[in-house]
Amino acid sequence: MINVGIVGGTGYTGVELLRLLVKHPEVTVAVITSRAEAGIAVADLYPNLRGHTDLRFSEPDVKRLGECDVVFFATPHGVAQNLMPALLETNTRVVDLSADFRLRDTERWGQWYGQAHGCPELVAEAVYGLPEVNRDAIRQARLVACPGCYPTAAQLGFLPLLEQGLVATDNLIVSAASGATGAGRQAKVDTLLTEVSDSFKAYAAGGHRHLPEIEQGLHDIQGGRGEPARVTFVPHLLPMIRGIHATLYSRALSPDQLPDLQALYEQRFANEPFVDVMPAGEHPQTRSVKGSNVCRISVFRPQDRDTLVVLSVIDNLTKGASGQAVQNMNIMFGFEETLGLDLVALLP
Amino acid sequence: MINVGIVGGTGYTGVELLRLLVKHPEVTVAVITSRAEAGIAVADLYPNLRGHTDLRFSEPDVKRLGECDVVFFATPHGVAQNLMPALLETNTRVVDLSADFRLRDTERWGQWYGQAHGCPELVAEAVYGLPEVNRDAIRQARLVACPGCYPTAAQLGFLPLLEQGLVATDNLIVSAASGATGAGRQAKVDTLLTEVSDSFKAYAAGGHRHLPEIEQGLHDIQGGRGEPARVTFVPHLLPMIRGIHATLYSRALSPDQLPDLQALYEQRFANEPFVDVMPAGEHPQTRSVKGSNVCRISVFRPQDRDTLVVLSVIDNLTKGASGQAVQNMNIMFGFEETLGLDLVALLP
Amino acid sequence: MINVGIVGGTGYTGVELLRLLVKHPEVTVAVITSRAEAGIAVADLYPNLRGHTDLRFSEPDVKRLGECDVVFFATPHGVAQNLMPALLETNTRVVDLSADFRLRDTERWGQWYGQAHGCPELVAEAVYGLPEVNRDAIRQARLVACPGCYPTAAQLGFLPLLEQGLVATDNLIVSAASGATGAGRQAKVDTLLTEVSDSFKAYAAGGHRHLPEIEQGLHDIQGGRGEPARVTFVPHLLPMIRGIHATLYSRALSPDQLPDLQALYEQRFANEPFVDVMPAGEHPQTRSVKGSNVCRISVFRPQDRDTLVVLSVIDNLTKGASGQAVQNMNIMFGFEETLGLDLVALLP
Amino acid sequence: MINVGIVGGTGYTGVELLRLLVKHPEVTVAVITSRAEAGIAVADLYPNLRGHTDLRFSEPDVKRLGECDVVFFATPHGVAQNLMPALLETNTRVVDLSADFRLRDTERWGQWYGQAHGCPELVAEAVYGLPEVNRDAIRQARLVACPGCYPTAAQLGFLPLLEQGLVATDNLIVSAASGATGAGRQAKVDTLLTEVSDSFKAYAAGGHRHLPEIEQGLHDIQGGRGEPARVTFVPHLLPMIRGIHATLYSRALSPDQLPDLQALYEQRFANEPFVDVMPAGEHPQTRSVKGSNVCRISVFRPQDRDTLVVLSVIDNLTKGASGQAVQNMNIMFGFEETLGLDLVALLP
Repeated sequence: MINVGIVGGTGYTGVELLRLLVKHPEVTVAVITSRAEAGIAVADLYPNLRGHTDLRFSEPDVKRLGECDVVFFATPHGVAQNLMPALLETNTRVVDLSADFRLRDTERWGQWYGQAHGCPELVAEAVYGLPEVNRDAIRQARLVACPGCYPTAAQLGFLPLLEQGLVATDNLIVSAASGATGAGRQAKVDTLLTEVSDSFKAYAAGGHRHLPEIEQGLHDIQGGRGEPARVTFVPHLLPMIRGIHATLYSRALSPDQLPDLQALYEQRFANEPFVDVMPAGEHPQTRSVKGSNVCRISVFRPQDRDTLVVLSVIDNLTKGASGQAVQNMNIMFGFEETLGLDLVALLP
Repeated sequence: MINVGIVGGTGYTGVELLRLLVKHPEVTVAVITSRAEAGIAVADLYPNLRGHTDLRFSEPDVKRLGECDVVFFATPHGVAQNLMPALLETNTRVVDLSADFRLRDTERWGQWYGQAHGCPELVAEAVYGLPEVNRDAIRQARLVACPGCYPTAAQLGFLPLLEQGLVATDNLIVSAASGATGAGRQAKVDTLLTEVSDSFKAYAAGGHRHLPEIEQGLHDIQGGRGEPARVTFVPHLLPMIRGIHATLYSRALSPDQLPDLQALYEQRFANEPFVDVMPAGEHPQTRSVKGSNVCRISVFRPQDRDTLVVLSVIDNLTKGASGQAVQNMNIMFGFEETLGLDLVALLP
Repeated sequence: MINVGIVGGTGYTGVELLRLLVKHPEVTVAVITSRAEAGIAVADLYPNLRGHTDLRFSEPDVKRLGECDVVFFATPHGVAQNLMPALLETNTRVVDLSADFRLRDTERWGQWYGQAHGCPELVAEAVYGLPEVNRDAIRQARLVACPGCYPTAAQLGFLPLLEQGLVATDNLIVSAASGATGAGRQAKVDTLLTEVSDSFKAYAAGGHRHLPEIEQGLHDIQGGRGEPARVTFVPHLLPMIRGIHATLYSRALSPDQLPDLQALYEQRFANEPFVDVMPAGEHPQTRSVKGSNVCRISVFRPQDRDTLVVLSVIDNLTKGASGQAVQNMNIMFGFEETLGLDLVALLP
Repeated sequence: MINVGIVGGTGYTGVELLRLLVKHPEVTVAVITSRAEAGIAVADLYPNLRGHTDLRFSEPDVKRLGECDVVFFATPHGVAQNLMPALLETNTRVVDLSADFRLRDTERWGQWYGQAHGCPELVAEAVYGLPEVNRDAIRQARLVACPGCYPTAAQLGFLPLLEQGLVATDNLIVSAASGATGAGRQAKVDTLLTEVSDSFKAYAAGGHRHLPEIEQGLHDIQGGRGEPARVTFVPHLLPMIRGIHATLYSRALSPDQLPDLQALYEQRFANEPFVDVMPAGEHPQTRSVKGSNVCRISVFRPQDRDTLVVLSVIDNLTKGASGQAVQNMNIMFGFEETLGLDLVALLP
């Protein structure tokens, strides 16, 4: 059994971490922090946890966190980087769900996040926590930067094509849509049910913070060969709670010599416990992964033309955030990778 | 480990049984039948089960079902009663999720279901599977009639008031609302998203089949004393997937001598693993039980007047159907009652 | 043509007023105020109005409002009462959509709204703007207090029963549910899509501000005879945008001498342009009135017992607020009562 | 006043035609046909029309239809083409909302629709009813083929770019999503609320029937110059009722010489009553056109790179079907083009 701490537990990734961790057979959640809700029982904020935990939110306290075996950050960007130096001086290891340590280029980080990076010295050490790409490095990592939700769906979807160098990397398109939990639990007019229900829209079409993360990740998948990936990324807001659907478009470099794409995808992910390639011709639905840690993927070549289409779905709170964080933890501590994550999606 | 059979597995109670049973540590699902889908892999119909089961639907076969330790019927009314005599001649036990064996009065059953009962000789033996009322009888039962969804929410909500004889039983009101899974998975215009989304309506206000079941159950809770309960029951259709919310109105018999209702409810359900009384003044939300087997209840006495209000929520597919069926199975086979059912609701 | 002013136009009743008034053939919207959005084009806040109006929000200014023929208040409670004395000194007439002048008992108003009434001297003059009850008084009124959404649905539903003295008035039950627009357009966690979508709950079961308004209105409908009405009112929050559904329960005083209820309802509302009695046995759906000013009603006597059930649906923003306000304006200014309101609901 | 007939009025385009036409000041709906519902009052099927029409469905009858000034077909594909020759021998004109006369290449039609075209001799005469492109031809047309929903959104979005020859036409991407009304009103498991609510998926990624229509239309917009357009079209199903959102990706041919795209779009559509270009940087929402005939468009050039992004939203039942049909009728009969269509979208 390991002791776990959670920093910033009042948001949706926080409650999702708790949903998973209170049933994890090797974990005790020892501390969960929130400045705003300190003293409040977690189950008073999240009634689904009534009967499953007696935890109360507490003020953040590096000493107490440092006594944990691992600390999850479920905080807005900018928080983890400030606490990190002190925290890593203790014995604990960290899984950061925020964006703070995802980009290796701290200058680019600063441009997209509108502030100077507060802890550039630790960025190089951070391991990007996409197990399907970085499993070995994660095992040893002291600091794992858990991928964003859109980047997870996009990278897993493009992975086999880019590893094999089959498509042009200067013209990748990620047309993706997220349920409203992606916008967090802040009180905002923009995400009231009355504003987003029964409607659909794109947002941040001119540029979204996940773009540089996607581009960095895709270039890594190419093994850093060739030009950096150039991605056009348009996110959309879905009138629903959970789920990300990424529709990925790319151009085959040698259309006449493409391998069997279905076989390529099935083989690449055959040993991945959390990636499921759908039967040929089937389309994945976000509800098929609701509450589960699975990414389901389909690949199409419409009209046998040059443009390839990949469909990739995840639950943005699970494989897109807290589930992947637990998966990383399992790898870091030598547990079975699926421990506590072998969940059947809630369908219908 | 016991072997389980499921008859009629293509509906929503069928897939919900599978969601629960494929993770149940003491169960092997040996057979699942469907005339329409025989030969099809279950996971092809329900993609959330991909990777969790290799089962295929098969034609119903009493012999094969009879080799199971327990058989669940997840069928429309009228099916279980016809198979029951032959099935009970084998060694198997049965949990029937349909309405076939819920009413002891087969004539009343015939009036409400529009056909003569096909197996009146077994009705007396059937145990009504509401564990909070009939736990001991369930333990020994060969045939358990699992309660309907609305009746579960209504009976648990009224339970303490009626056991104590605190309210008039000739004027009970059940104003309840269900998610659309309550209407099943049949292709019908009436339950298309385009017909029921962003809308709300009552239905069957003149009389719903769950009415006699509710009245029978409430009279049983009174210990059969006094006049049969008279209930006004109006169901409503919610623009959502899962969840039942029952708002129960009753009149105090002796308003000046009412006990502390909050304490009454908390004490009555203190040892019930699947009934949770909310803190005073809180209102239960259906989402707080989504995918879980819990019933959450609140009790109010507005303006300190004579009319009492009880709010009771369940997931209609879990505590309202398949979860309760598994709870009954656990009791019948001497397993821990919460085995395989200790689930955190999916929130948000 | 008359000139219209709107105070507090940034909420949902404000935009709904504009939707109706920009197409009203006898109206020019001259001014719309908002402290927070002063200077902003209305169509920038509400893109559905792009191309339909060039109005901009302005600071509230009694002089400019006083030059209008009529001023609508679409403000939170407490605002209208403070502006009213100065405003009524000008020549203008007022339709107040807020709760400020609905209750004749200002002490009771103060208890429910948590503050002393700021303008008790004008309360007696205010006419309660339910045209189906007060049409003649509205015609002459200088100040119309437009009914709340729940009270509109409840009063119209109970109207024929109470006018005829057919039911006990000490035990009326209003079990009602509203779309989330009823909670307004404020940034609140409680009404985020992620919090209320795919869920259902009661709220304020211990007491809601619309209760005294409903009780006052129902007593008025009885002609003030007998004891004041005693109502148990439980509102619920629906996972949808617009619509109120009230399920009304009452006890027949002389069950053996009840008239034909269907005929009673049809006759009472035969000449009402905005009340539609459904055919016997049909249930009204909220979507059938989405965006329209109609209230649709059904009446049932389940099992021929003593409890009567009335179903009443309105669009909370139209007949429940802004549409009824325009209906009142039409009456006040001698226009055809349906002018600008003869809208087909948006279905599907 | 003209007399209008509607063939196949029980689907969603039928009820939407009625919503618009019963309020159209120059129209009398004389006949509406349905084999399945003949004899039934329209308002019994569509309660939003109660009080607005006394029409009843009747059996299709060419003679009676021929006495109308114009006949709308709101039928599945294959119906209009069979009735057309007889119908056009009468004096009537036709607006066909189905796919029967949209493609000039009847062989291609046959491939995509799985049957030989039943009336190839009239295909050449049919005018493609996209007013923003074909207004003059529509004015004189005897037979107008009303565009599909996705093709309307895609063509209006790409229009200025293709007219100006600014983007490569061999690599156009239409990533689009539709509310569930796009799937019609047939009883199907696939579009039950319980199957599509709170979920999102692509469908027909391998090829959708609207693809050849989009490609034909885009080539026409280019003036038939150059190679036929090659489009990758992936439709998605949204968990909502109405609305189409098309996200269009294209590659600039001369990135260094692109004109001001915002100005280009604003100028091109300045005189179009039903196309609204959003302010620079704004994203259109489907709810902003709910129930209205407007198409709202935004154009972006993310990161100043070579890929352009256009966002285009319509109500699939209005501008995507019945509203556009009425717009065509207005043009054909010399009415003001906006007559009966000057509707404010229902928001919220």
